[in-house]
Amino acid sequence: MADRAPLGRRLLAEFLGTGLLVAVVIGSGIAAQRLSPDDTGLQLLQNSITTVLGLGVLIVVLGPVSGAHFNPVVSGVDWLLGRRAGTGLSGRDTASYCGAQILGGVGGAVLANLMFALPPVSISSTARNSPNLWLGEVVATAGLIVTIWALARTGRVGLVAAGVASWIGAAYWFTSSTSFANPAVTVARMFSDTFAGISPSSVPGFVVAQILGAGVGALLVIALYPDAPRIADDVVVAHPAPVRQETT
Amino acid sequence: MADRAPLGRRLLAEFLGTGLLVAVVIGSGIAAQRLSPDDTGLQLLQNSITTVLGLGVLIVVLGPVSGAHFNPVVSGVDWLLGRRAGTGLSGRDTASYCGAQILGGVGGAVLANLMFALPPVSISSTARNSPNLWLGEVVATAGLIVTIWALARTGRVGLVAAGVASWIGAAYWFTSSTSFANPAVTVARMFSDTFAGISPSSVPGFVVAQILGAGVGALLVIALYPDAPRIADDVVVAHPAPVRQETT
Amino acid sequence: MADRAPLGRRLLAEFLGTGLLVAVVIGSGIAAQRLSPDDTGLQLLQNSITTVLGLGVLIVVLGPVSGAHFNPVVSGVDWLLGRRAGTGLSGRDTASYCGAQILGGVGGAVLANLMFALPPVSISSTARNSPNLWLGEVVATAGLIVTIWALARTGRVGLVAAGVASWIGAAYWFTSSTSFANPAVTVARMFSDTFAGISPSSVPGFVVAQILGAGVGALLVIALYPDAPRIADDVVVAHPAPVRQETT
Amino acid sequence: MADRAPLGRRLLAEFLGTGLLVAVVIGSGIAAQRLSPDDTGLQLLQNSITTVLGLGVLIVVLGPVSGAHFNPVVSGVDWLLGRRAGTGLSGRDTASYCGAQILGGVGGAVLANLMFALPPVSISSTARNSPNLWLGEVVATAGLIVTIWALARTGRVGLVAAGVASWIGAAYWFTSSTSFANPAVTVARMFSDTFAGISPSSVPGFVVAQILGAGVGALLVIALYPDAPRIADDVVVAHPAPVRQETT
Repeated sequence: MADRAPLGRRLLAEFLGTGLLVAVVIGSGIAAQRLSPDDTGLQLLQNSITTVLGLGVLIVVLGPVSGAHFNPVVSGVDWLLGRRAGTGLSGRDTASYCGAQILGGVGGAVLANLMFALPPVSISSTARNSPNLWLGEVVATAGLIVTIWALARTGRVGLVAAGVASWIGAAYWFTSSTSFANPAVTVARMFSDTFAGISPSSVPGFVVAQILGAGVGALLVIALYPDAPRIADDVVVAHPAPVRQETT
Repeated sequence: MADRAPLGRRLLAEFLGTGLLVAVVIGSGIAAQRLSPDDTGLQLLQNSITTVLGLGVLIVVLGPVSGAHFNPVVSGVDWLLGRRAGTGLSGRDTASYCGAQILGGVGGAVLANLMFALPPVSISSTARNSPNLWLGEVVATAGLIVTIWALARTGRVGLVAAGVASWIGAAYWFTSSTSFANPAVTVARMFSDTFAGISPSSVPGFVVAQILGAGVGALLVIALYPDAPRIADDVVVAHPAPVRQETT
Repeated sequence: MADRAPLGRRLLAEFLGTGLLVAVVIGSGIAAQRLSPDDTGLQLLQNSITTVLGLGVLIVVLGPVSGAHFNPVVSGVDWLLGRRAGTGLSGRDTASYCGAQILGGVGGAVLANLMFALPPVSISSTARNSPNLWLGEVVATAGLIVTIWALARTGRVGLVAAGVASWIGAAYWFTSSTSFANPAVTVARMFSDTFAGISPSSVPGFVVAQILGAGVGALLVIALYPDAPRIADDVVVAHPAPVRQETT
Repeated sequence: MADRAPLGRRLLAEFLGTGLLVAVVIGSGIAAQRLSPDDTGLQLLQNSITTVLGLGVLIVVLGPVSGAHFNPVVSGVDWLLGRRAGTGLSGRDTASYCGAQILGGVGGAVLANLMFALPPVSISSTARNSPNLWLGEVVATAGLIVTIWALARTGRVGLVAAGVASWIGAAYWFTSSTSFANPAVTVARMFSDTFAGISPSSVPGFVVAQILGAGVGALLVIALYPDAPRIADDVVVAHPAPVRQETT
């Protein structure tokens, strides 16, 4: 625990990481729409490949500082699963993480809009409202949680970046919802009326499905990996340990 | 052997893994067909990239629990090649694995259909019936078996996820059959009349070709890597060892 | 420090690496334009995937010789951040690196033109001149610097190739400027009037934005990773250490 | 040296590996042409991504047996650079390797044709005859040689598969010749009059350029990595060492 970075630095990492993740998702969506106007599938391919690369590198770069959650449900599950062993985020830190993530996400939407010479904010009109999309969000979020904790609980934190990026990249396509899987990113995507946007009225349904999916994921973690070592859960918060290991 | 997870937990992992693999294959096929209606090759590109990412992460996540077979011929070869050294699955466990894989696969087809607002089950009408496709299945399955055991028998279990995902991704394209290479997945793909489907009458030919390919693959393993250490074959079933190694 | 290769060999590596990087960017742009004339987005996808693969392998191959900067702002930040600890490039070496990079880059543009049977040099007429593109360059370059030093300062130099290639690949799409992020490459791209070109009048704006972005990146490195070990900064220059480690 | 597999087993690996490599290249080219008839660039994208995945996994799987050359110029440079230290292939083994590679390659072309229900052999009519394409082959082959020996001479044999696959994937696009870079594969590609074919009259020019490129590559290896440890060159032939290392 003494190894953790100061809270301010961790919140900076969560702010930056979530912001850049949203900029990656929205920005590449705008570019795709402009450059390949004739084929929505090609746009999603460009959007999803960019997200795989961008999300992976953000986790690798910021993981040692804050754990690279970039996602309120990840922070929430970290708090939940870490409570018994006393290794997870505290309730207070969890709330701070969520705040930094949401602020960062909105900042990232504004940044993407500005980079493409659009008004800083425009409210999305893309409705994403139907039970089958919510089912997609449940599956995408549950898989995300299982991926992170399966790797943490088996001591393979170095694979989290590749694992999470791959899961999200696949879920872009095989869930019908294109895998938002993240309440902070969902909120932020309201603020750009472009390819990756979501209308405000569709947000609550998505967020509820994501929270449900996180619950399903946490139950699967407990079923599949019941014997979590103390240290494994800890590294989800921030993983200086493997880093040090590699420098020796 | 004492390291293996209880059978129930391993069967849960095989059920979930095969189910999600089928959901990945069928779901991304549906999305590709809807979003890129004008170019079948672009659809297959989207479908194959999604499968590479999804299959890789499922093996990484569930490998330490059950060995991440997701495939009756992999379980069968594990039983076959492990018999002499007493390291493989027992005959009874092999049968249980196959059952979990087929049930999971069908569940995954239903899940994919539901996520895309289709009826839970529709029987595929896509005929895949000709000797050249069967030859493709033989090649795809033989290569899959060689990939897994070459890595296991040289102590590089950590590369199985990337190796298997890469092989299947390549075989989607270079075999004419788009590389089903898996009887459980083949059976499951009957239950969705979409891009990745296969008509019931085409299933027996594919399954026979896959079993033949597995045999060819096992012979090549014996020819190329005759000196299999006991431990190497064991890790194909479930690989807690490298995990523990990484946590030290 | 005694481990460093002689300056001449390091300059050869920077010359070759920057040259081949430019050949990769320009050459794949020409091929993309010729082979997929109907969809600019598909061209950028081909161009960006090629750059991810080519940049990654060049860093892996030449990193142990020169540090694989291929980029004046990377060399500059190495000099700047390494001054205090005495680990970075000297001012003189930094200047030599920049010279080799610019010469190499121009050579790479000529090579690309010749491989595609074009005149050895043609001055680009593609204007890339607007504040939103400059913002894109600031973001792309800042992220590049943070990626390199975050990995170096946490002892994960072996991930720099994948990290940098992934970042640039993502930034091709999510920044509006397609992520030049490199003054030597920017200068070189003047010399090919093809897909990846930039008109001479647009170069100064891009270079200023890149220098600004490098400054922002250096500040973020100091904020996120203030406790840089001596050894970590050193390996940005050339990393024989991890190599030796792997051979033991 | 005592660690090497018997020559017969190594030749089997070279035969299989080169054959499957050619099947990957030709087979995916046929599939691409059939499925995406309207865009040659999309066909090359499908062809090149398949080759990256297939080549990478073949090197990983067969490397520990034979060194996974699959390429006469790689075997030739191994003989040449290893002579002084007595670590490379013997002249006789080099000749056997080349024979197995050419036979395997032709077999792979026949296999690809049969999988796609084409006549087993058809002579390609695709002319690839011009100095700018030959320049592309020189660059592609030189880079291939540098990639392999840079990694071998710095003790990073575990990165050869990813490095070689990435280089070839990039060179598909940025060299004008689509990077054959391999005399055995070039000869084999005469035997399929499809996307990846080459007319017999174009073969000599390509092979000469590849031999020239290999020479350039060998000189660059000596310039960039003059201090080759004995062990490093050895592992290019067959690398049991890193394997054993990983099992401990």
